[in-house]
Amino acid sequence: MKFTRLLRSLTRPGSAPARRESARRAIELCHLVLTQRGEASVAQVAAEATRSIRSLGDGAIDRFFDGLVDEFSPDADRIRENARQYADDPTHTHLLQLQAAIESPRLELFRRLNMAPGGTSALVDLRRQLLPTLRERPQRSAIDADLLHLLRSWFNRGFLVLQRIDWRTPALILERLIQHEAVHQIQGWGDLHRRLEADRRCYAFFHPSLPDEPLIFIEVALTRGLAASVQPLLDSAAPLADPGEADCAVFYSITNCQPGLRGVSFGNFLIKTAVEDLQREFRRIRTFATLSPLPGFLDWLTSSKVGEPRSAELQRWLRRLADDGVLDDGRMSDELRREVTALGAYYLLRAKRGSEPLDSVARFHLTNGARLERINWRGDTSGAGLRQSLGLSVNYVYRLADVERNHESYAKTGKIVASPEIDTLVRTLERRQTATA
Amino acid sequence: MKFTRLLRSLTRPGSAPARRESARRAIELCHLVLTQRGEASVAQVAAEATRSIRSLGDGAIDRFFDGLVDEFSPDADRIRENARQYADDPTHTHLLQLQAAIESPRLELFRRLNMAPGGTSALVDLRRQLLPTLRERPQRSAIDADLLHLLRSWFNRGFLVLQRIDWRTPALILERLIQHEAVHQIQGWGDLHRRLEADRRCYAFFHPSLPDEPLIFIEVALTRGLAASVQPLLDSAAPLADPGEADCAVFYSITNCQPGLRGVSFGNFLIKTAVEDLQREFRRIRTFATLSPLPGFLDWLTSSKVGEPRSAELQRWLRRLADDGVLDDGRMSDELRREVTALGAYYLLRAKRGSEPLDSVARFHLTNGARLERINWRGDTSGAGLRQSLGLSVNYVYRLADVERNHESYAKTGKIVASPEIDTLVRTLERRQTATA
Amino acid sequence: MKFTRLLRSLTRPGSAPARRESARRAIELCHLVLTQRGEASVAQVAAEATRSIRSLGDGAIDRFFDGLVDEFSPDADRIRENARQYADDPTHTHLLQLQAAIESPRLELFRRLNMAPGGTSALVDLRRQLLPTLRERPQRSAIDADLLHLLRSWFNRGFLVLQRIDWRTPALILERLIQHEAVHQIQGWGDLHRRLEADRRCYAFFHPSLPDEPLIFIEVALTRGLAASVQPLLDSAAPLADPGEADCAVFYSITNCQPGLRGVSFGNFLIKTAVEDLQREFRRIRTFATLSPLPGFLDWLTSSKVGEPRSAELQRWLRRLADDGVLDDGRMSDELRREVTALGAYYLLRAKRGSEPLDSVARFHLTNGARLERINWRGDTSGAGLRQSLGLSVNYVYRLADVERNHESYAKTGKIVASPEIDTLVRTLERRQTATA
Amino acid sequence: MKFTRLLRSLTRPGSAPARRESARRAIELCHLVLTQRGEASVAQVAAEATRSIRSLGDGAIDRFFDGLVDEFSPDADRIRENARQYADDPTHTHLLQLQAAIESPRLELFRRLNMAPGGTSALVDLRRQLLPTLRERPQRSAIDADLLHLLRSWFNRGFLVLQRIDWRTPALILERLIQHEAVHQIQGWGDLHRRLEADRRCYAFFHPSLPDEPLIFIEVALTRGLAASVQPLLDSAAPLADPGEADCAVFYSITNCQPGLRGVSFGNFLIKTAVEDLQREFRRIRTFATLSPLPGFLDWLTSSKVGEPRSAELQRWLRRLADDGVLDDGRMSDELRREVTALGAYYLLRAKRGSEPLDSVARFHLTNGARLERINWRGDTSGAGLRQSLGLSVNYVYRLADVERNHESYAKTGKIVASPEIDTLVRTLERRQTATA
Repeated sequence: MKFTRLLRSLTRPGSAPARRESARRAIELCHLVLTQRGEASVAQVAAEATRSIRSLGDGAIDRFFDGLVDEFSPDADRIRENARQYADDPTHTHLLQLQAAIESPRLELFRRLNMAPGGTSALVDLRRQLLPTLRERPQRSAIDADLLHLLRSWFNRGFLVLQRIDWRTPALILERLIQHEAVHQIQGWGDLHRRLEADRRCYAFFHPSLPDEPLIFIEVALTRGLAASVQPLLDSAAPLADPGEADCAVFYSITNCQPGLRGVSFGNFLIKTAVEDLQREFRRIRTFATLSPLPGFLDWLTSSKVGEPRSAELQRWLRRLADDGVLDDGRMSDELRREVTALGAYYLLRAKRGSEPLDSVARFHLTNGARLERINWRGDTSGAGLRQSLGLSVNYVYRLADVERNHESYAKTGKIVASPEIDTLVRTLERRQTATA
Repeated sequence: MKFTRLLRSLTRPGSAPARRESARRAIELCHLVLTQRGEASVAQVAAEATRSIRSLGDGAIDRFFDGLVDEFSPDADRIRENARQYADDPTHTHLLQLQAAIESPRLELFRRLNMAPGGTSALVDLRRQLLPTLRERPQRSAIDADLLHLLRSWFNRGFLVLQRIDWRTPALILERLIQHEAVHQIQGWGDLHRRLEADRRCYAFFHPSLPDEPLIFIEVALTRGLAASVQPLLDSAAPLADPGEADCAVFYSITNCQPGLRGVSFGNFLIKTAVEDLQREFRRIRTFATLSPLPGFLDWLTSSKVGEPRSAELQRWLRRLADDGVLDDGRMSDELRREVTALGAYYLLRAKRGSEPLDSVARFHLTNGARLERINWRGDTSGAGLRQSLGLSVNYVYRLADVERNHESYAKTGKIVASPEIDTLVRTLERRQTATA
Repeated sequence: MKFTRLLRSLTRPGSAPARRESARRAIELCHLVLTQRGEASVAQVAAEATRSIRSLGDGAIDRFFDGLVDEFSPDADRIRENARQYADDPTHTHLLQLQAAIESPRLELFRRLNMAPGGTSALVDLRRQLLPTLRERPQRSAIDADLLHLLRSWFNRGFLVLQRIDWRTPALILERLIQHEAVHQIQGWGDLHRRLEADRRCYAFFHPSLPDEPLIFIEVALTRGLAASVQPLLDSAAPLADPGEADCAVFYSITNCQPGLRGVSFGNFLIKTAVEDLQREFRRIRTFATLSPLPGFLDWLTSSKVGEPRSAELQRWLRRLADDGVLDDGRMSDELRREVTALGAYYLLRAKRGSEPLDSVARFHLTNGARLERINWRGDTSGAGLRQSLGLSVNYVYRLADVERNHESYAKTGKIVASPEIDTLVRTLERRQTATA
Repeated sequence: MKFTRLLRSLTRPGSAPARRESARRAIELCHLVLTQRGEASVAQVAAEATRSIRSLGDGAIDRFFDGLVDEFSPDADRIRENARQYADDPTHTHLLQLQAAIESPRLELFRRLNMAPGGTSALVDLRRQLLPTLRERPQRSAIDADLLHLLRSWFNRGFLVLQRIDWRTPALILERLIQHEAVHQIQGWGDLHRRLEADRRCYAFFHPSLPDEPLIFIEVALTRGLAASVQPLLDSAAPLADPGEADCAVFYSITNCQPGLRGVSFGNFLIKTAVEDLQREFRRIRTFATLSPLPGFLDWLTSSKVGEPRSAELQRWLRRLADDGVLDDGRMSDELRREVTALGAYYLLRAKRGSEPLDSVARFHLTNGARLERINWRGDTSGAGLRQSLGLSVNYVYRLADVERNHESYAKTGKIVASPEIDTLVRTLERRQTATA
């Protein structure tokens, strides 16, 4: 009765409650969602609650998160009691009681909110707003765990749909690509069009519940020979190549579009599925490789002592880069090229975070079973490319026949499969290092 | 290494291993699924495992279920230890450990199997095979609990897609309807066609992962006046009515198609969504009602003393029905009609299982918020109609405006909302009963 | 003003005018269609006229055809005058006048009727009703010429859409196949389902304006070895073959669905497009061939003297066939087989109607560039197969590489490309014939 | 034989023949198309010929048109002979002979070219190239007549498909809108997006054979009150209006996209169909009107004496407009407004070309049955708006109930239905004029 009134009062459009009040109402509606019995009425109240949550402003959402922690967490006393009971008397009944006590009421709340129209999208969005607050409010990580648990289940690979993106794709979707592409920004519709022409491919994963929202997309260039530099690929005035002549597919950008799905991994599937699709379409393409940045290279270099003593030229360059943020005087020497390339190889192969590579992009591709193939001097001369990767780019090669073996040996022993050239670069550097020491 | 060989040996087609061996291999592949790290290789091994499970024969699947119990259940000792730890020292870390210990490894296994192509379908199928064995092997209910947990999550209402079924629907889907319709069997394609003509509607729910498999469907007749008898609706030679003249939508059959999804409820949503769709299309339709059986009526009547002493005519009839299974001599009296109808009303309104109606169909519609409207003498004179419902049918009315209130009062107090006529029938019977006693 | 009233009076539903009156009204509406100027009002009146024509009963449609001849034919006097003018003074202006005079007003009428919703379908239907009356009313062939002229233009190959038909096709379309298949009747939905399984293919042409109506369809069996007999292909209980193992695609039935489109040819395109599609899908299939009847064989045999004196066995058989319509005593001799097969070969290769084969099926496939490959004794033992083809069937082979050359030589010189076996059969018969004579 | 060689030589890619030679080959292929007999081979040669025509450069296409005139026109002597025969002896046979002689072989050629993949598009394109040459080469108008005859038949209203264009439409199509919109140019994708938001509608006609090419499209703004000025509608930063509040649909731009289809009219259908669709979607919208330019106003005004003696202000203004092409000093008087508006009304209502309005836009809408509603001072202040319409805009109102009556009276008597305000403006001007004279 009380709740029905609550519901009515909230459906009145145009109301402008204070933050506290609006967060309170959203929380009350969430309680109401959990107390419904018939599923049709659950869905109805869930729709109401979802609308209410969606309309919360910045301050109110913060209070709402506090409510989710305070009022929808499992009851610690009850868990403790049930845990003790089971520990003392491990019967099946006690186990079920313990399981029931331990499950967060938030889980059921989120499951029920998902029944509302647009519920999935609202929950993804909720997590997007939640994530940046976790560092300051660690107790909210329990909300995150519950959301991630459900999103992983719902966005299970079995439910994803691969779609090719091209110039026939609805503008609505293409606009998302322009918005989300972060690695190599898309400079408007003309640039996008060039990236979708006959000598390019673009694939995205979608979920049936978010048909207008790509989850992740990958951009591919079909080239003759393994591309070393990304700038020609990004040149929207580049002449159209004949895709039938291509022998190489270069994955030059992969972009996650849903911050609210962080931690639900799609990328490795997307690469694998894209390779399979390309193999079907182009029989002449033999090499499937990325053209990737080394995002942590400069940071690592400035804080490491590897390769010291470094050349005066390198030091001068790093200083200019730090001071002016520019670098392009064309007078770099071959020695510099060799020095930086070797340091890049060392960074990818030897610099670690625990047992894994320090470089996040390297971690991603090596876990997927790729092979570290080639490091390209001046492979990305954009501002970001210089600031992060010192202008280097790297090719990781995906050979489907080797992917599993590479992945397995990497997973078990941490071994990175690299080309002989890269191995040699690193060993030479190490020998010199040892000699110097 | 060992596992890769295992994998290879299994992919060889044409092998015909003994039951034990094939179940063993399926189990080994399931272990292999759980030990994979990269998601792409998880998916690959999951595909292998799914194929292997699908190919298990009757005996082998039984052994496979045993393996799922023995080798993929949570570790009782570990739970006990973690429960004790938490009980003694309820820190967040101990809670996480307890949660991890308590979750069944089967859950993660099933999640991973779902990554295989056709994985969802395979798991639904696995549960279909599992359910009939639970009575004899109660320990397997833990497998069922895990499967149901995931299927409820994946088949969340938010992911279901309503589709209208008509003569434009692919034959593949229509064939499923013919196979599954159990309430009023479909007598071939001609009969089906009649049920999909302009004065009928049929709706089904689908899940994006099972695009060829309706989950549940409902059949509707658009009529003038509330239909009392189902036989005219099933007559495939019945003349076509003008749907624009209809004032009533009669839901005369609702069928679940997936035994493996038992316990995941779709029916109430389907009715509600169908009512909404019909309201949009036909503004003149005011009454939305079912024409339903009373499946437990005869059983209840023969084991109950309500209404005794019963008329000689009723007793004679029940005997003939029991002996010959037939009933249609046209000489039934008005007294008999009144006697049986009143008993039917009493059965629906008063016969209980706990606090809920004994009749399963009544339970379903009353939980959904429907109102018990009318009992129809000779409303279903088919063999099954006579054997179960003594030839009665019942209309439950769905008024969207009242559904929530009805549901709420039913849920809270067990109160059944019934029409005055039905209330009167029951009260009169009760008065007579009291007088007799 | 008058016309507007006419229009109103006709739109009143439920009127039941006499035949004469209803035909008159349809004709008046057609005049009205031609006098409209704005295209939007043309379309509106055309819709009215189309409804009016569609509602004409058998007698009325006859009067309507008479009206189309009497009131919508070109004006003979005007043609004559313009013809004389042009003959005397062949200027461009006189030519345009002559062209205008010579074009039938019916053409513009039909073009305008086509603007109505469902107009194309109505015109196809009109011609379907017209064609059977032409023999008795030859003057109506001018209507037919006009309709055929437009339908050929509108159903130009460039506008046809090939669709594969399978068990996913809407029931609405599949029902049409069951209705129309005349060569080898489809015995209900079970039979149809078998014809659409994995070892079969079925293709149809559609026109965008008749999306629910296949124009023509072809049924294909994928077999190992070139099928000689049609009965195994029609057996709905035949085990499923592995299409990947097939080396032969047998076109065993091709059916036109629209009698109103007689004379607009689709068949040769359909075969060619089907062959191309099959080649893409199945690389192992090398032979593309029909399994066809010889529909005029028995008629020809009974009226020809070729092969006389014929064996007593053949004469006895033909008598029994004529008397009892049956034939299957299993005691036929090898001599009979040879005799009949040779006569069949002679019939196909030598019996002519003008310069073309007497047999209509032979004409069709030979014009298309097929090669006469093999004659099969007891290749079609159905009733129709015996009555028309004496139980023979014939394979015409389509080799895309030869089709054009075959077609060209057939078109220019009437030469029929046949296998050496068939040539030998005919020559042997001819030698014996000469020897006998 | 010769032709087959010809065909082969032409299929060789990379050949770069001289213009004469390439036009010659295209012409030869056209002859070859006409001599094919089997339809499959017709289609094949037609594909070859179409490719050949498409590859003709500017000079070569000119020679190709000459070839179409010289070698594919009807034979004048044969027509003359047949015309004389029929004039002397008007039998049916002679009529058929005359008809056959008179039909241009080009017609059959174009019909056959249409069988090639992309044939329709190629013919539309051919006409696009042909039209600009007609003035200098009038003999080519016979080619145009043949093409127009076929295109009118193929693009019959019955074959057109209406599609709503919005932000979900493929980018490929949207790009066409940006390219073709000529009335009010689209300033890139942002501008287009604004024109497709919730308070706007856009519709286009498509033909099944040109699925990627809109034939014509119309842009609609949903407004409160009848918009007088176009600039607010074109402002891409304009706030979003609530379409549910709109009472007026303003058609502010209608654009033909296919120059090759000039003379095949789609516009009136498009407006009518759009009005019907809008009526279904928005029950509150009562007024359907255009916001149109008066493209010939300034030209007429400077060459006419109507309204003389004109005010000094008007004369000064016209001079400045002619000299500097600009006009916007904000100091225009109310007298000027009245003077120009009255002249605009006079221009639309009285200035004629034959019996029809001199203004092409007025002709179009009045033929369609619209009513001349209102003239808006400073209704289009863009450069083009000033140069052509002196900054005026005009609303034509489409009331479906009156459209037919308006159209009929306009078609029969030339009567223009205008609002009383406009009538008054014109009469006042005329009275003054008479008084002055």
